[in-house]
Amino acid sequence: MRVLGVDPGLTRCGVGVVEGVAGRPLTMIGVGVVRTPSDAELGHRLVAVERGIEQWLDEHRPEYVAVERVFSQHNVSTVMGTAQASAVAMLCAARRGIPVALHTPSEVKAAVTGSGRADKAQVGAMVTRLLRLAAPPKPADAADALALAICHIWRAPAQNRLQQAVAAHRTLKGRTA
Amino acid sequence: MRVLGVDPGLTRCGVGVVEGVAGRPLTMIGVGVVRTPSDAELGHRLVAVERGIEQWLDEHRPEYVAVERVFSQHNVSTVMGTAQASAVAMLCAARRGIPVALHTPSEVKAAVTGSGRADKAQVGAMVTRLLRLAAPPKPADAADALALAICHIWRAPAQNRLQQAVAAHRTLKGRTA
Repeated sequence: MRVLGVDPGLTRCGVGVVEGVAGRPLTMIGVGVVRTPSDAELGHRLVAVERGIEQWLDEHRPEYVAVERVFSQHNVSTVMGTAQASAVAMLCAARRGIPVALHTPSEVKAAVTGSGRADKAQVGAMVTRLLRLAAPPKPADAADALALAICHIWRAPAQNRLQQAVAAHRTLKGRTA
Repeated sequence: MRVLGVDPGLTRCGVGVVEGVAGRPLTMIGVGVVRTPSDAELGHRLVAVERGIEQWLDEHRPEYVAVERVFSQHNVSTVMGTAQASAVAMLCAARRGIPVALHTPSEVKAAVTGSGRADKAQVGAMVTRLLRLAAPPKPADAADALALAICHIWRAPAQNRLQQAVAAHRTLKGRTA
């Protein structure tokens, strides 16, 4: 399973590609950051994010795209830009028919560190260890993108089992109704 | 000046095209709503919004696109979808090199009714009058999109004068520095 993780942002949009399956060692395929100048017009920044994401999709052909789920509750000053960058990432993936999964920051932290309240350093340290890298990826947005991809690979089997159970339950209900 | 106004939303994205110049009677060229099913996946909904906006741009070739500026403060439950739909509208326009302007809801209300706190019915009534329509456009999202376009046509001369003044001031400062 090859997953592109996207930590959305207008100034720095983290991107990381991880390959593997749950329960086996994972491999980092690529990591980077799509940047847009903060003094550019919003529309042009969104076009630059689109171009960057398209390049990553072209180059690495992921089977899934995992994007951080954005909440409006915290970080009010930057949340709109984050929501807008995440929309562009989801749009690029969905246009190509690539399934998009959303994971919350605490799901991602819990997946890679065991705690939903882990700090950035802890996430970076675990990403480094899990992908057997020489040093933590910089900046933090890049490490977070890799953590999202790892989270998706590890959660996907459980999510699929859940979806199958829900589908089976619906079929059963349909039959007995 | 031909302006496409966009009242962004995932379930209903209002679109309206108005032509005219400040101080002269305005003409409605078209009005409508881009809808996406609320049970569809987010990525697919964003692709549907993109397709809808692209059709309006293709058909009406506006010189400007005016989008409602989204705030994270109010309407927390729907604000993320609104921000994401607005990102798609801005992206579509910027990709074609069409200038994008953002106007706040109170700027739009003040422009068409004289009060930044006018209600939906008042905005609908004034849009109907200003565009000499037989009845208020339905749903409210469609009327709001027309109000955005009207607001842009009326505010544009002032905005351009301001931008020219700022540019002139910068040039002057550059010379005297």
